[in-house]
Amino acid sequence: MSRAKVTVEYDGSRYCGFQLQPNQDTIEQRLNTALSQLFDEDISIIACSRTDSGVHAFGLVFHFDTDKSSFPIERLPLAIARELPFDIVIKSAIWVSDDFHARYSVIGKSYQYRILRGTINSAFEHNRAYLYKHTVDVDIMRDAARLLVGKHDFRGFMATGSSARSTTREITCIRIIEDGDYLNIIISADGFLYNMVRIIVGTLLDVARGFIPVGNIALMLASGERHYGGHTAPPHGLYLLNVNY
Amino acid sequence: MSRAKVTVEYDGSRYCGFQLQPNQDTIEQRLNTALSQLFDEDISIIACSRTDSGVHAFGLVFHFDTDKSSFPIERLPLAIARELPFDIVIKSAIWVSDDFHARYSVIGKSYQYRILRGTINSAFEHNRAYLYKHTVDVDIMRDAARLLVGKHDFRGFMATGSSARSTTREITCIRIIEDGDYLNIIISADGFLYNMVRIIVGTLLDVARGFIPVGNIALMLASGERHYGGHTAPPHGLYLLNVNY
Repeated sequence: MSRAKVTVEYDGSRYCGFQLQPNQDTIEQRLNTALSQLFDEDISIIACSRTDSGVHAFGLVFHFDTDKSSFPIERLPLAIARELPFDIVIKSAIWVSDDFHARYSVIGKSYQYRILRGTINSAFEHNRAYLYKHTVDVDIMRDAARLLVGKHDFRGFMATGSSARSTTREITCIRIIEDGDYLNIIISADGFLYNMVRIIVGTLLDVARGFIPVGNIALMLASGERHYGGHTAPPHGLYLLNVNY
Repeated sequence: MSRAKVTVEYDGSRYCGFQLQPNQDTIEQRLNTALSQLFDEDISIIACSRTDSGVHAFGLVFHFDTDKSSFPIERLPLAIARELPFDIVIKSAIWVSDDFHARYSVIGKSYQYRILRGTINSAFEHNRAYLYKHTVDVDIMRDAARLLVGKHDFRGFMATGSSARSTTREITCIRIIEDGDYLNIIISADGFLYNMVRIIVGTLLDVARGFIPVGNIALMLASGERHYGGHTAPPHGLYLLNVNY
């Protein structure tokens, strides 16, 4: 038995999220089917995490086990391309030791959130960026983002109904990059709570357009109460960027 | 009667090209329908040129005439958005004088061609860039491109079966821009023959990977014979970038 570590890129627009669900077209289902077909055995992948419907990935990582230890795993991206739809692409694959676990070995992750500033959408980015019509002050946004960096209880930045044991996470970096009409927010942390990136982005936007005061961020961190925050940014601007082990 | 000049961006992937055709889903058909609906009269647009099936546009220009001269035309992009599919977006509109003609008043156009260098496609760019697996020497490509700039008979760079009266065109500029794994070729000219950009790009690629000698470009220009050239690059990497009047 050999274990492979694989990086996959996908456009989540057409899928009901990452995770297997009965009678739903999901990315995990597509990957399991393609790998089982290629290796001619039942393969079930274990992913670093799941993504919601509409969310994309530049570099989600998963592992799987196979008896075909002689398979030239570096060639997996090319070999499996015809078994996968055009919007799910294996970018790289390597053999790893049996103690590697795509979910439990994670030490950090980065997400990118793409915002298109304006009132008119792009013909090419409909499902791939958040069209935001309000004027945002990027300097204020950067000041607000700085308050979130570090080890905090992010309970106020978590969707209700999630069941995380601890709600303390450490954000190591938030980068805000302007690229013409686009605004990219890249957040790196040791882990993320459910909807945490989307709530952070929605709150930063609402602060940066002057809709809620920047002081609310300190209130959210201190009280753990979601209602001090801004809106939850939509899923289609969100990309799982990379995973660190 | 008032005449409007309009700039449209579209992802051509889902359409049978720009031009009206019976029982086909084309971009011109979609624009005519949306404008006729919005203005409540029969509107037929006149475009600067057409694009083939799969070809995209960042800035195709068309004009149309309407009796609704009091319409605030600058608001057309927002007003028409809900009448158009997500992959056809009006970017700007202004009133122009009656002697403006989207096709006959053109003095120059630019096309962009997007190449993704590698063997593995992007999950996001399947229909939007030409995946090219051969190694290309960008310096050689730039040298080859320089031979094409200027006023030449481009008959050798035209698809057979086209019926252009004159085959002389002036290429004013070819820019080759590297952007990570992407290679963008931007070609500006006073006009283009049928498939001219795609034949130029295919020929530059074949020269830059050492498959045909750079001298063949001079042969194509001197003899007007297509067979000295490289392959015709596929439509899905091609974008009509902008039109000058």
